[in-house]
Amino acid sequence: MLREPDQHGWTRQVFSEPYRSSRDLVAAKMRRCGLEVHTDPAGNIVGVLRGSSPGAPALITGSHTDTVTGGGRFDGIVGVMGALELVRQLRENDITLTRDLIVVDFLGEESNDWGLSCLGSRSLAGELTAADLERRDGQGQRLGDRYDTFGLDPSAAISARWLRNTPLHSYVELHVEQGPVLERHETQIGVVTAIAGIERVLAMFLGRPDHAGTRPMDDRRDAMVAAARAVLAVQRIGCGAPLHGVATTTRLANGMASPNVVPGEVQMRAEFRSIDTEWLSLAKQQVVTDIVDEARSEGVDVEFDWTTDNEIVHSAPQIQDLAATSAEQSGLSWKAVPSGATHDAVHLARLCPMGMIFVPSRAGRSHCPDEWTDFADIAAGVQVLSATITALDAADSVSSA
Amino acid sequence: MLREPDQHGWTRQVFSEPYRSSRDLVAAKMRRCGLEVHTDPAGNIVGVLRGSSPGAPALITGSHTDTVTGGGRFDGIVGVMGALELVRQLRENDITLTRDLIVVDFLGEESNDWGLSCLGSRSLAGELTAADLERRDGQGQRLGDRYDTFGLDPSAAISARWLRNTPLHSYVELHVEQGPVLERHETQIGVVTAIAGIERVLAMFLGRPDHAGTRPMDDRRDAMVAAARAVLAVQRIGCGAPLHGVATTTRLANGMASPNVVPGEVQMRAEFRSIDTEWLSLAKQQVVTDIVDEARSEGVDVEFDWTTDNEIVHSAPQIQDLAATSAEQSGLSWKAVPSGATHDAVHLARLCPMGMIFVPSRAGRSHCPDEWTDFADIAAGVQVLSATITALDAADSVSSA
Repeated sequence: MLREPDQHGWTRQVFSEPYRSSRDLVAAKMRRCGLEVHTDPAGNIVGVLRGSSPGAPALITGSHTDTVTGGGRFDGIVGVMGALELVRQLRENDITLTRDLIVVDFLGEESNDWGLSCLGSRSLAGELTAADLERRDGQGQRLGDRYDTFGLDPSAAISARWLRNTPLHSYVELHVEQGPVLERHETQIGVVTAIAGIERVLAMFLGRPDHAGTRPMDDRRDAMVAAARAVLAVQRIGCGAPLHGVATTTRLANGMASPNVVPGEVQMRAEFRSIDTEWLSLAKQQVVTDIVDEARSEGVDVEFDWTTDNEIVHSAPQIQDLAATSAEQSGLSWKAVPSGATHDAVHLARLCPMGMIFVPSRAGRSHCPDEWTDFADIAAGVQVLSATITALDAADSVSSA
Repeated sequence: MLREPDQHGWTRQVFSEPYRSSRDLVAAKMRRCGLEVHTDPAGNIVGVLRGSSPGAPALITGSHTDTVTGGGRFDGIVGVMGALELVRQLRENDITLTRDLIVVDFLGEESNDWGLSCLGSRSLAGELTAADLERRDGQGQRLGDRYDTFGLDPSAAISARWLRNTPLHSYVELHVEQGPVLERHETQIGVVTAIAGIERVLAMFLGRPDHAGTRPMDDRRDAMVAAARAVLAVQRIGCGAPLHGVATTTRLANGMASPNVVPGEVQMRAEFRSIDTEWLSLAKQQVVTDIVDEARSEGVDVEFDWTTDNEIVHSAPQIQDLAATSAEQSGLSWKAVPSGATHDAVHLARLCPMGMIFVPSRAGRSHCPDEWTDFADIAAGVQVLSATITALDAADSVSSA
């Protein structure tokens, strides 16, 4: 029986029932392609295509199949299904790689209520901690307990650092761009140079609450006005990035504010992203200077709490070269692009050299139902993924970025 | 046994138990002054000092004794206790007024969870409606039911419009300024010219939610940036008021915003107050023009929802003159001032000519524990209230503003 969905778009959040059943589908598809399939201790679905030279450092590819709430059909999924198409083509053409090829559907890559994305790839990199398992969601549920009820052993997940007998050779991930750059340049393939570092700040503006009717304009310490100036400072600094950078105020709030009070306290959250280490560091300093100066002119104090969400992660130059050459040999247009979004590749880079291949997103839209990539572009992406992996199979070793 | 209070300051919210017991104290004090005391159908505590000429239009004075959460000891209370001191002095000096003098402690003047201030004076003016009784607070409780459990008949409250045999002559209210103007001018008495009108706006900024990492700065429709520009527009317009006016953004929110999304929707609440009808009307137009222009440059649409919270209410010129003359005759400095805050006098002005007398608030602070007025200033205020009421007692009639 058909029924109207509860919301627009596609929703498969980590640990949910739709996610559980879609993972069964992924595992079945992997088996049908001839992969040896298991769920690893981190909760990733892992399919192995045996190579001709047992013990040689293995190739990894993959992505994720969870979504945000009301998301699209391409973010992550293209990288998993693309890898399976690549395996199917290898077998169809009777090609046997020298190295093992490991295809992974990583557990829960998207943001979740525990504030910890990339659960599966984070585990593999040894970056999921016992403290992380104690995180609680909005309903007070421990992350560790959620692993449990999903049928995963949380203590195994925090000890899941890649320790196989087979060392890893390199990781390549195919993904939709989630931004408008490729489409704007009418380019089919993005060769990712680096994944942006993310600096987040919580700024607390402390002014003085006053009666909005009786306090003259020239005698106020209005925290909202200071915060508004800060929003514009964040935008101004983001617009000034010379190579690559974005800056966004994602949230502003003044709690249970009364309707007749000059705001005395306002909280602001902003983030800065770039693949340019120098700019990211300068932007942090500049925004503090600008915000403090402008707040002072309003008589408002500001406290800052910074957290680094990701360091900048560079793709291995050799993998970038191989991907670009693969595109050219297939007659595809390509462009070196930064990744402003985080990916499982950030964590895989801790284990072996990493590279990413992007395909265009229509109007740059993502995390929404109208997310779209033309099938021809996906096919082109799979072709470049395939050629890059074949080339890496033949490469003795790859140095990290 | 002494214990630490749950919060700083003084809290007697309407319908609360502390309010109920403090009202018993007020009624007892009224009786001790020789007033005939009853609770009227609106829930006001009314004390009557009989005059020598039964049937002559009566004088009213008073204010309120409820507080905001964590408020002070002067807002409202000075007007009720000051009226009782005036009655005590009249009796001490064996003075009998010609007219009845009615002293009122109005029910619930402060903002409450039902979003309806000045409950008691609103009732008397016939402005409490059956629809108002259906309002619900955050816990879902009907305002009408809260009247009931407080021992008041809600249907009587909405029919409580002043219909006594005795018509009303004039109303005078003594109150703390709640702003810094008198202190700044080292002036003891404020003669209120008018109570500001309040125009409130809910502005909804509609941009486009985008991934904060992948959407370039030059391709955003950032609702937060548009809202920040609007906050500054509100401030700029408030600062430009030529005679009297304030403008305040009291709240900005973008709901359950994700930490990695360019805000697509932001809600803003702002208010404009003035005793200058022309400016208030111009400010409304100007702020819409400025906000829409600046939002358009960010690719953001704006919807506005305006509500008039109070029309401007003018004090009767004759009462202003009597108060000013009273101050001068007592050797007190005085100044004509606007009231930026709302008072019970707004509603009493529907029934008879109105005037207000302000005394200074230290640093203009109010609605907080450090609210303070020097006792000498309160005594000066009572002296002017007393002289004004005595003069009004002798005046045949007073024309409204």
